[in-house]
Parts: sequence; structure tokens; C-alpha cells
Amino acid sequence: MATYACRSREDLRVEVKKLRARFERLRHEQLDLDMTRGKPSRLQLDMVSGLLSVLSDKDECIIDGIDCRNYGDLAGLQCARAYWADVLGCKPSQTFVGGNASLSLMHDLIARAYTHGLKDSPRPWCKESRVKFLCPSPGYDRHFRITEHFGFELIAVPMTPDGPDMDIVEELVRDPMVKGIWCVPKYSNPQGYTYCEETVDRFANLKPAAPDFLIMWDNAYCVHEFEGEFEPFRDIISLCAEAGRPNMVYEFASTSKITFPGAGISVMASSEENIEYWSKLAAIQTISYDKVNQLRHVRFLKDRAHTIELMKQHATIMGPKFAMVLKMLRYELTNKGIAHWHHPKGGYFVCVAAMPGTAKRTLELCSWLGVKFTPAGATYPYGIDPHDSMIRIAPSLPPIDDLEKAMEVFCVSLKLAALEKYLGITLENEDLI
Amino acid sequence: MATYACRSREDLRVEVKKLRARFERLRHEQLDLDMTRGKPSRLQLDMVSGLLSVLSDKDECIIDGIDCRNYGDLAGLQCARAYWADVLGCKPSQTFVGGNASLSLMHDLIARAYTHGLKDSPRPWCKESRVKFLCPSPGYDRHFRITEHFGFELIAVPMTPDGPDMDIVEELVRDPMVKGIWCVPKYSNPQGYTYCEETVDRFANLKPAAPDFLIMWDNAYCVHEFEGEFEPFRDIISLCAEAGRPNMVYEFASTSKITFPGAGISVMASSEENIEYWSKLAAIQTISYDKVNQLRHVRFLKDRAHTIELMKQHATIMGPKFAMVLKMLRYELTNKGIAHWHHPKGGYFVCVAAMPGTAKRTLELCSWLGVKFTPAGATYPYGIDPHDSMIRIAPSLPPIDDLEKAMEVFCVSLKLAALEKYLGITLENEDLI
Repeated sequence: MATYACRSREDLRVEVKKLRARFERLRHEQLDLDMTRGKPSRLQLDMVSGLLSVLSDKDECIIDGIDCRNYGDLAGLQCARAYWADVLGCKPSQTFVGGNASLSLMHDLIARAYTHGLKDSPRPWCKESRVKFLCPSPGYDRHFRITEHFGFELIAVPMTPDGPDMDIVEELVRDPMVKGIWCVPKYSNPQGYTYCEETVDRFANLKPAAPDFLIMWDNAYCVHEFEGEFEPFRDIISLCAEAGRPNMVYEFASTSKITFPGAGISVMASSEENIEYWSKLAAIQTISYDKVNQLRHVRFLKDRAHTIELMKQHATIMGPKFAMVLKMLRYELTNKGIAHWHHPKGGYFVCVAAMPGTAKRTLELCSWLGVKFTPAGATYPYGIDPHDSMIRIAPSLPPIDDLEKAMEVFCVSLKLAALEKYLGITLENEDLI
Repeated sequence: MATYACRSREDLRVEVKKLRARFERLRHEQLDLDMTRGKPSRLQLDMVSGLLSVLSDKDECIIDGIDCRNYGDLAGLQCARAYWADVLGCKPSQTFVGGNASLSLMHDLIARAYTHGLKDSPRPWCKESRVKFLCPSPGYDRHFRITEHFGFELIAVPMTPDGPDMDIVEELVRDPMVKGIWCVPKYSNPQGYTYCEETVDRFANLKPAAPDFLIMWDNAYCVHEFEGEFEPFRDIISLCAEAGRPNMVYEFASTSKITFPGAGISVMASSEENIEYWSKLAAIQTISYDKVNQLRHVRFLKDRAHTIELMKQHATIMGPKFAMVLKMLRYELTNKGIAHWHHPKGGYFVCVAAMPGTAKRTLELCSWLGVKFTPAGATYPYGIDPHDSMIRIAPSLPPIDDLEKAMEVFCVSLKLAALEKYLGITLENEDLI
């Protein structure tokens, strides 16, 4: 079958007619589906709900001489720090275990850079005339929003299947106003790309002009394969240390998509010097994070190996959903020349690059059928996709039947949006009835 | 018995001799006691450890249509907001339920005022030429440290048994650079004073020059009687609203001293407008706080009435400890003219006003005997008590026998420090052997 671009206008009009009929049929289903965020499904949460009862005996709350119920131990229980060090491949002394959200640790670190400066900052960032921050795009909207919130200038860096375009990154960091970069090194949000070895090496060996340049290494999906075996990753903390800039990177992770999204534990990892510096600032904000929940998690997840086993159980639920999304995309959109996508093996998203200028329109058509997606543009700085092309699909939450329906809505809408473009028409909601 | 001041030097020398003998005896006990912080004791934590198992069934995690395990509901579960509204006497819509530390909510609010400004701020506080903050003193060191951390000028305001000296407060708030005040309205830390009705009214009716003046109303001990019946308190949120300045106050509370100090839940309460404004800022920092722990707490604590009943159980442990402290103070120090103190009915501290110029010395002598107290001065801005007089005693953590011993050490040391002053001598550590 020829791509839309190679077909006659007559042919395309016939295609529109067929799709309008499907659109009409789908409207009758009166769908109300939410695909906006990467939320785990109830089945996944039920699967890990042993967490609720893994620590019920008061006498088990004393560990290594510490009563996890009481105040104290700002950087976390020793066993929780050891757990994360095992998962991330760094040292326990390089970890700081936080509350239920790694996003908070990231926000708070940027906030501290702004108000007080980082370890190697000549001054707080609020005293800089301008701060620029690199945003590999498409990327995670909540990352970008943190740096936007503090008034930094967001600079989009193109993503490639190997990670951010490092030629551009290396060029940009020569500007001393460029203070940092957001990274999701494994199964990047939203494309699901894993940074290749060379990319990781080039990050560790970056020579930025700013002495306090900050790599925000959000390893959100470090053990989150939904297809195939666990893919090992390298320890960015020691790589940066070996390259002579140990304080340049902060790594983040959490159990949000391992146990409970709203009630997990998080971690920040960096050089010991950074962790010590950070702890002094954090001590103003809190006496300690929730150590009872830390102990619950250590008892439930045990170690890296056991965690990886648990992730295979998540994969039995997540895998078929991603397979469904990819099957529908393949079936509906292959060889039309109007969209392409990557087939990820882990993470929480599939990202579809629609024909430029059709992403917003696609999602508008979806919304007419009662299916909500992450707004087009959300994966770019300031919410603006310059090509109006990228669409993030989050398959985790809906049951698989709903997901199939949502994907049909998506594909029909995307095709209609492309056909409108080719034919120079705009279908009104009424036209589609 | 006459006060030290009225006794002859000969008499005082005899007294020193007796006390040196006691000091020597106490040294032989080789004590190692920590009275520095208001930590609940293990017995108290064991008493509430039913919390660990009150939510073990996965099906009970769904409440009001919300899965408390998943992402979402930034301001907290409805039932948790209703719980706090019941405790504080405000509306659920006026609450925002946080994580395990109300200190974090306080810090984060001040941090937001600094970086972005409050609802009624003409500009972020970091753009003000100067920011002054009122610190009723003695007060809570962690409060003062937050505002010091952001570079505000701390202004001590004298405490009276009725609360902060309101004549002075009303005068100081006429300065538009004065942006706020720290308050612990019930069983103030460290003196245990409860603000009288007139003080509370005068707070609600404050007319500060700064449009974004902020009352930090830390109701940390709102249900924390250890002696006698629960003392009702008035709802500061509605009082400020009635006085025409609904956005002037943020109230804080937590279960840190009701359930687990390190693993409780916290709350911020204010006008709906403030809570809405705050929520927009907080949404940059996190998707939601730990709602599983919120639900655990609601199931365990139920409501205000049940919480007050639980606090009576805490009182059976706390009451005797405070009674012991007060008995020792009375027995050792009455009518010497060298110290006075208030007998609180709730809270976590007893505060002793030693003879000016003897607080640091008293605690130095205590340390020689292996007993640590909160450093003298800690309850004042910048850690400096201008009279070197106030000493905070935290009776909650040690078992009662240790407490008795620690109080003997304290009283002997305080008397020796006073006698040194009267006699113009300084005993060396060696003199005391």
C-alpha cells in the first residue's frame, strides 16, 4: 500500500470517507478514557500490596540500633541506603533516601541551587543574571516545569535513539550561563530510548564552563523492563568521579513504579561531598524522611536481584499493554508515511512522531471521542513542540480492552488529521456526525 | 531558707562544698544521657504501633473512589483533610495534608515566599531589599533557623505567660519590612505557655504594613495535654477571616507526637484562596504526598475525640516524667532565688530561667557529668540568649529513673553555676574531682 503522499486526492477522499464512518461508530461507544499519565494499573498495585503488611510488628521497627518510628537519620536508614546503592551500583555513603517522590528531591535540589547555590557554585543561581538549562526534547514535562518555575531559560536539545545529541550538548555547555541538563538515561520519557555507552561516557567527560554545572540524571526506569531481560546500566556517579568531576551529577530513582506510585521511597545519589553538602541544607527543611516506609520497602524489595524479579511480574501486566499499543500502531499506521515510533523494551511510554503539524489536531479529534492523551507539546520546553508532532502514549493505566479502543481512536484520529493536511480541509465536529 | 543572695559568703562556701561532694558522687555514676530533643519514648511508640497494621488489606486502599496507593490528590485524601479539619476546627477545603513533617511544609512555604512570593506579595521576598521576621523568644530553634537560612533579619520579641508581648508585636508590624512571625499558640516551645484569648484576638486583628505579612501558627501541641483535661483552642483561620485578613495566617500541625515522630502525617491550614495558591506551587514539587499513610492515620486516629482519648494514654507516660522534672526543680531550687520556671500542662518541654549569665555554665557542668541538654541560647534567634538564662528541658525520651538522675545533675550544676557567680569563682573540672 502506498503512502498517503503518493496517493491521488480521489483515493485520499475515499479514505476520509471510510475513516469518518469509523469515527462515527466510535463516537457511539461514548468512551471516557484517560491516557494522560504514566500511572500503574490497579492490578500492578494489588500485586505489590504485600508491602502493606510486611512491617506490622513493633519490635521489628528497631534496626541497626535505630528506631525507624522516631525522629532522626536524615539521610535514611543504613539498610535503605544500602538497598539503593545495590540497585544503582554506587556506595551507600553516596545515597540520600527521601520521601515518596523523587520529583520532590529534584525540585528541592534545583530550589537550593537557586536560593543557596550548589557545592561548587560561586553564588546562588538567583543572583546570576541569567540561568540556562538544557532540556533534551521530547522529554518529561515535570522536569522542564521545575526549571521553568525558577525562571531559567529552557534550551531544547534534540533527542536521538542514542540519547541527547552530544555534539550539541558539548557545544552548549561552553556557555557559562548553561547550568545543567535533564536526563532520563534508561527508557527515556517519552521515547523509551536508552542512552548508549558513548553517550554516557560523553556525559561523564563533559567539560562545562559553569563550575557548578549539574547533570540531573533521573534514572526513573532503571529496572523497568517490560519486555526481555534486565538491561544493566553503568554507575554514573563513579564515571563522573573517574573523569575528575565527581560533583557534577545527581542521580535520582524511586519505587513509584516498583511498589506504590504515591507511597514509595525515593533516592538521590551523588558524590559523598555533594551528599554531605545537601544534607546540611536538607536539615533546615526536615528532621528525617519516613523511615518506617523505608524499612517496609527494604523488607519487601530486599535487594536489586529480588527487585528485578518483581519487575518481571510487573512486565506480565505491562508487556501485553505495550504489545497492544505497538500492534495497533503497526496495523493502522505502517507504510502510510504519516507517523513513526520506536519500540521500547521498558519504561512507561510509547512516543509517536506524527506528521508535522498534526499532533494537536489528532488529540483534538481524540477528545471529541472521549479519549484524553497528554497534551501535544507537553514533552517540549514551555509546552511548545516546534513541529507539532510528538504524542506521548501512556498504556499502563487502562485495562487492555479499553486500551485497544483508545488506540483505535488514536489511529483513526491521526489518519484523519493527516488527510486533512493533505487535502487542505478541516472537518468540523458536525461533519463527522 | 533564704535565697542565695541573702546568705553570707561563708554560708555559700559551705553550700559549694556540699554540692561538690554531690557532683563528685554523680561523676562516679558515669552517666550518658541525652535530653537535647523532644523525642517521644519507645513506650509511647509501642503504644501506637497498631498503626503499622491498621491498613493491610489491598481492597481497603480504595476510598471515596480514590486508590490511595496511586498518584494524585495533591491536597490529600478527602478523609484526611476532614480529619484535620475536625482536629483544628476549620473546613476541609482549608487544609492541605502533607508528608511526615510539618517542618517541611513550614520550610517550603517560607522558601516559596522567598522565591515566588505569597498570594498577596507585591514581589518574591528574595527581591526585597530586606526582610525581617519576628521570633517570640525563647522559641523553637528550628523555626528560627528556617528564616535565618533565607537571610531574613530575626527580631526577638519577648514571651509572656499570655503569649508574645503584643504591644511590641503591634508596634513592630508597622514596619513594612517585617514580613511575618513564628507562633506556637498552645504549650509554646519551650516554655509551655498557651496564648490567652486576648493574645489570639490581637493576632487575628493585626494590621501589619506588609500586605503579605505571614503568621506562622505552628499548632504543634494542639491536643498534647499531659496533665488535666483537653483544653479547647480557637480556630485562627476563621478568626483572621472575620477580622478581614483571611490570607494572613497559615496553621500547621502533625501527628509526629501523636503516632510516629518520623512517620506521621502533617497538615497546613489556611484560607481556601491560600490553599489554592499554595497547591499550584506545590504541584511543581510533587504529584502527591503519601496517601497510604494518610489513610492509615485516619483509620487509626478516626477523629478529634478519638485522638484526644489516645493523647490521654500518652499522658500516662508523659505525665509522670513532667511531674518528676517539676518535683526535682521544686525540691532543689525553690526559694534559692536562682531560677524560675512555669508548670506546663502540655507540650514537650519545661523551660528553666536560670540566673542571668549562668545557663551556658550550668550546661557545661552537666556535660562534665555526661548529661546533654539543648545548648543554651538555642531557643533564641541566632542561638544567642542575651541574658544567658533560658534552658530547655525535654523530659520525654529517657526512662523515669534516668530522668531523675539527669535532673539531679541539672539542679546541682545550676546551683554550682549560681554560686560561682555569687562568690566570683570558677571551679575547674579538676576542682570538682
